[in-house]
Order: sequence, then structure tokens, then C-alpha cells
Amino acid sequence: MTVAVKALFFDVFGTLVDWRTSIAREAEAMLKPLGFSLDWLAFADAWRGEYQGAMDEVRTGRMPFCKLDMLHRRNLELILPRFHVDTLTEVQRAALNLAWHKLDAWPDVPPGMKRLKRKYMLAPVSNGNISLMVDLARRNDMPWDVILGAEIAGDYKPKPQVYLAAAAALDLAPHDCMMVAAHTNDLMAAATQNLRTGHIARPNERGQGRGETAPGQKVDIAAKSLEDLADQLGA
Amino acid sequence: MTVAVKALFFDVFGTLVDWRTSIAREAEAMLKPLGFSLDWLAFADAWRGEYQGAMDEVRTGRMPFCKLDMLHRRNLELILPRFHVDTLTEVQRAALNLAWHKLDAWPDVPPGMKRLKRKYMLAPVSNGNISLMVDLARRNDMPWDVILGAEIAGDYKPKPQVYLAAAAALDLAPHDCMMVAAHTNDLMAAATQNLRTGHIARPNERGQGRGETAPGQKVDIAAKSLEDLADQLGA
Repeated sequence: MTVAVKALFFDVFGTLVDWRTSIAREAEAMLKPLGFSLDWLAFADAWRGEYQGAMDEVRTGRMPFCKLDMLHRRNLELILPRFHVDTLTEVQRAALNLAWHKLDAWPDVPPGMKRLKRKYMLAPVSNGNISLMVDLARRNDMPWDVILGAEIAGDYKPKPQVYLAAAAALDLAPHDCMMVAAHTNDLMAAATQNLRTGHIARPNERGQGRGETAPGQKVDIAAKSLEDLADQLGA
Repeated sequence: MTVAVKALFFDVFGTLVDWRTSIAREAEAMLKPLGFSLDWLAFADAWRGEYQGAMDEVRTGRMPFCKLDMLHRRNLELILPRFHVDTLTEVQRAALNLAWHKLDAWPDVPPGMKRLKRKYMLAPVSNGNISLMVDLARRNDMPWDVILGAEIAGDYKPKPQVYLAAAAALDLAPHDCMMVAAHTNDLMAAATQNLRTGHIARPNERGQGRGETAPGQKVDIAAKSLEDLADQLGA
């Protein structure tokens, strides 16, 4: 299939980085020496479980836009009591919140992005804030041309403005841009704004067999990995 | 000198790229085949000569913020009649305006930035818009971590907000950031906001001997090139 686009916009959490095992690892590294013994993966799932609800506060206008780091911190305060982690200091809570800046990429991401970079402009269009994206990129060698997404748009996906602001920043029409994500709902929201769509299978995003193995609706390209995406795009 | 900073913010026009000979070259490449014969360097100087005045319209609030590309286009319309270039079509004018996306870096920039990237977060804090910065970076292998500057801040340097918005995007205090520029006034404006300052000598920016050979006021580091800056920063 020939899909002529100039820029690839990437979802990040789940699509490029394995948030679940990374958060579990970071939480364990910090909390275990303090004497806590939790189900670390359950802790990661619980933290991520508050994600959409927190962003809904902003999407609906009940709360003004703030960086995702602040929403992650709010969510951390919600879940710590559930896991009976009640004794952390402010400094420890702030440090734990930065676990989201220390996520590891899926193995196909660095080689896939290196190939895609030669042919396309690459940008995250994530709900993560700029500093978080910078830290993930430096950690995982993501060769972004520019960091776009929620903080640039002042709202959270799947609100239309996030996709449209990304295309506008590059002076591109939406149809010259492809949203790449492991989540069909993200791609459908992008398609509604006339962006092209590329699905990446992440069958184990939320644990073994708990992720999208294929798009739930029609997309322009369905790929098994970023390297497969590069193959299909001739990059 | 030890200057402990975490991010380096770069001025771009003049500091990293040689706008004068690049604009002259691009204008000649486009206009000469159309039968025009101008003093191409004078044309570049005239175009750049309208730069500060155009931004002042925005800085003073007389005009809402718009991308620098739009100001460059306004300035082009001002100077074309002066050079008796009156017959260009809209498409040709738009193409000529993109000359600013095709500027070449000074020779020390790619090797210097490669070294600095290992130790510091690197971002342009330029008055140029995002798409312009992306095109210059792809052309000249500038390994930006993120593109900051006027379009992120919604105003033009030397307005304080441009420097402060850049630091805030990275969750850094201003004193953890160094502004790097070949223009003392840019550095003094950054210093007023508590950023550190690094001067790069560009003695020929506006023609032979018409550029700053040294900072006109006290700065944290005065360097002859980006490689010299890397030496002095131990990068």
C-alpha cells in the first residue's frame, strides 16, 4: 500500500514504551528498600487505571489544562492508600512520580524509528508533557524532529485540537500526517480529523494477552512493529 | 570555569546558521532563472533588515502573535519593490519565502552539537517557528531534544516569556539553563531572567567583519565556536 505522508505522529505510552513493567520496576526499586512489599504489576495497573479519568477533568473543562506529570501525581495520591503506602515524604512522592520519565521502549522502537526518520518527520503526539517526552527520548534514543502533543495543544487526546495543532505546527495538512498508535480509539479520533492511521500491535501492553493484537476498525496500515511499519512504508 | 547547567538554549539565525550567504544563494537560485539580476547579498541584508521591526509589531501587542514565516513574507513584500522584482506570482513568492528554511549551519555546529548533546539537553530558543526549526535541523543534522522558542511562548525574544517558557517546558529553573547566542542583547535579556549565558563569536555574520567578535557585556562563557563551547563546558 502506498500512503504518501510527510510526518508520522506517535502515541507513546503503550505504543512505543512498555509503561507497565517499567512502572512496576521503578516502584519496586524505590519502595522495596523502604520496606514495602506490593504486587508491583498491580500497582502499575492501578496507577494507569486512573489515567483516563484524570484527563477527563481537563477534556470536559472542569479543570484547566495542566501537565500530565501533575495528573500522574494526583493519581498517585489516589492509589497509595489502596496499597497501604502511607508514609512517603513529599520528596519521595515527587521522586516516585518521575517513574513515568523512566519507561523503556519496546525492542523494535529504536531500530524502527531510525529507519523511519530518514523518510519522515517524526513527532510524539502523546498526552505526556514535554519534559517527560524529552526524558523518554534521551533514555531510548528516539530521534524526534520535534515534540508535539497535549502540552502544545493545551488539551488531551482524543480531543481534535491535539491532532490538528500537531499538523499545524509543521505547516502540514492533516492528510499529510499519519497517527501511529497501538490503540484503535486514538486512531479513529485522528482519522476523524483527516489524518492517516497506522496501527502497531502491542498484544501484551497491559499484561500477557491484554493489548490490541490488531486494529478494531479499518486503518490505513496495520503493522506488527515499527520495523514492520518501516517495511510497509518503504522506509 | 564550571557552569553547572542542564539545558542549552540556542539562538539560531546568525548563531548556528549563516542566514546571509544562504538567503543570497537561495534568492539567486530562484530569481536568476527568471531573468532578475540583483546584488544578492544586499537583497539578503534588506530582507533581514525588516526583521526586528516586524517582530516589534507583535512584541508591543499591535499585532497578535503569528509565525515568523508570516513576518518573513510580510517583509518580502516590503523589499521586492525596492529591488524592482514586481512580477512574481503568489506561488513564487511563497516558494521564495521558504529560503529561510534552507539555511546552512556554520561548519563548527554539527560537530559541536554532537558533543554537547551527550551532556546537555539541547533546544533552539529562536524566534523562528517550529516548522522552520525542523527544516533547518533536518538539513544540518541538529540533534535537538525539543524545539522551544517563540512559537511555544507566543511572543518574540527578547520578551522575558520566551526564555521563561523554555525553562518551564523542561521543568527547569532558569539558572539551570544557558542561553547560547552570538548576540549580546539576546544574552542580556536571558540573564535578566536568571539564565546563564554563553556567547559565540560570529565575526562575519552580516558580512566580513560585521558581527560580534566578543560579547559586549559580561557573560558566563565567551566561546569562539560551538566546539570551543564544548571544550569549556567539558563536553
